Amino acid sequence: MVLLGIEAAAKVAGAALYADGHIIAEHRLEGTLTHSETLMPMMDAVLKEAGRGPEALTYIALTTGPGSFTGLRIGAATAKGLALGLGIPLIPLSTLEVLAYGAGSSITSMVCVPIMDARRGQVYAAAYHNRQQILEPQAIAAQELAEQLKALHQPCLFMGDAAELYRPLFQKALLDDYHLAPSHLRELRAGASAALAAEKVEKGQAVLVKGSELTLTYLRKPQAEREREAALHAH
Amino acid sequence: MVLLGIEAAAKVAGAALYADGHIIAEHRLEGTLTHSETLMPMMDAVLKEAGRGPEALTYIALTTGPGSFTGLRIGAATAKGLALGLGIPLIPLSTLEVLAYGAGSSITSMVCVPIMDARRGQVYAAAYHNRQQILEPQAIAAQELAEQLKALHQPCLFMGDAAELYRPLFQKALLDDYHLAPSHLRELRAGASAALAAEKVEKGQAVLVKGSELTLTYLRKPQAEREREAALHAH
Repeated sequence: MVLLGIEAAAKVAGAALYADGHIIAEHRLEGTLTHSETLMPMMDAVLKEAGRGPEALTYIALTTGPGSFTGLRIGAATAKGLALGLGIPLIPLSTLEVLAYGAGSSITSMVCVPIMDARRGQVYAAAYHNRQQILEPQAIAAQELAEQLKALHQPCLFMGDAAELYRPLFQKALLDDYHLAPSHLRELRAGASAALAAEKVEKGQAVLVKGSELTLTYLRKPQAEREREAALHAH
Repeated sequence: MVLLGIEAAAKVAGAALYADGHIIAEHRLEGTLTHSETLMPMMDAVLKEAGRGPEALTYIALTTGPGSFTGLRIGAATAKGLALGLGIPLIPLSTLEVLAYGAGSSITSMVCVPIMDARRGQVYAAAYHNRQQILEPQAIAAQELAEQLKALHQPCLFMGDAAELYRPLFQKALLDDYHLAPSHLRELRAGASAALAAEKVEKGQAVLVKGSELTLTYLRKPQAEREREAALHAH
């Protein structure tokens, strides 16, 4: 298995090459440039540095949402093109599951709570305990999520780009049960996507799709559509 | 704090830039080229991609051993030069502590056991439980380490480049208490060095040294010296 992980769902752009049970090469950049400018050179670079050509690839893994609408589309377009060109399958992954896995959901006994900023007091969130999904991916008010987690009476580990933003809110609700993932484990990494996809392949649990069949999971409609619908309802 | 993490202690070369509580940019490569060729371009690249010049740096962190003698020396020479040139301090870190931290020693309740191949049946190893060092860094026969860990009767999480090599030995000794860190958390990462150093700075626990005062921790003498001593004793 030679697997390329691509990450463009949020502020981070990244690419990682997995082969022989290892992440061989990885690049990661938290957005000063747009992903359309950074993603392709990163993919090129990790392949070149690892001494492999694109034809060596057997799988491409990428997070397909939730996340930034633009980021998700750029990631998907890039991955689809490469998968179609090489005739290899894509492995779509939940951005929230990758966040939890990246932060160590397989080695901690805490409830892992990936949260991403969804604006207007909402977060995209899920929760996993001992690798089981106990709260399904959803857009939810941060305050409501805090109340649901409080009712669990379990230590909760937060990760994702909203983890710092909403730290006061969750800390106030959960007190000693609140834990923030350390900075090197807190945010999206193509290395985590690649490792999770490789684990799924090895366990026979990977969902494989053709480039032409890839769909994105926005969890809610793009703002432009929401505004159009609101305008229609107003009439 | 703008902190550059450098990693060259083992097969992995890496550089990571930490600023504003995040790893902003990171490159990581598992050795096809030598570190003397890869390290400096990586440092350049993460600074350039993050839109920062070297003059923005306030700290440089690097793992100072145990590890490959050549890798450690290349990493130290590079870091010393940069620190002296910029007039900023170095933060030396234990390679074993970085391995444990990188794999999530702050979020798991398992005993974290970083092991690096030291040849001839030996490993460089340490053990940490709830962030406390319970076995000090040492070169030890893998079999002896397995017996010491077995006596703990605790789940043990292994990471480092010898974790896969010695998997059968430790698994046989520890049975259900044996756990292997997932691949994206298992090996050295400059991002982990940078995050650990930043955490130490924030807690007032960082050891700061001048470039001219940096020392390496080999844990045992280089092979050339051992051979020379053996030859002297033989006479």
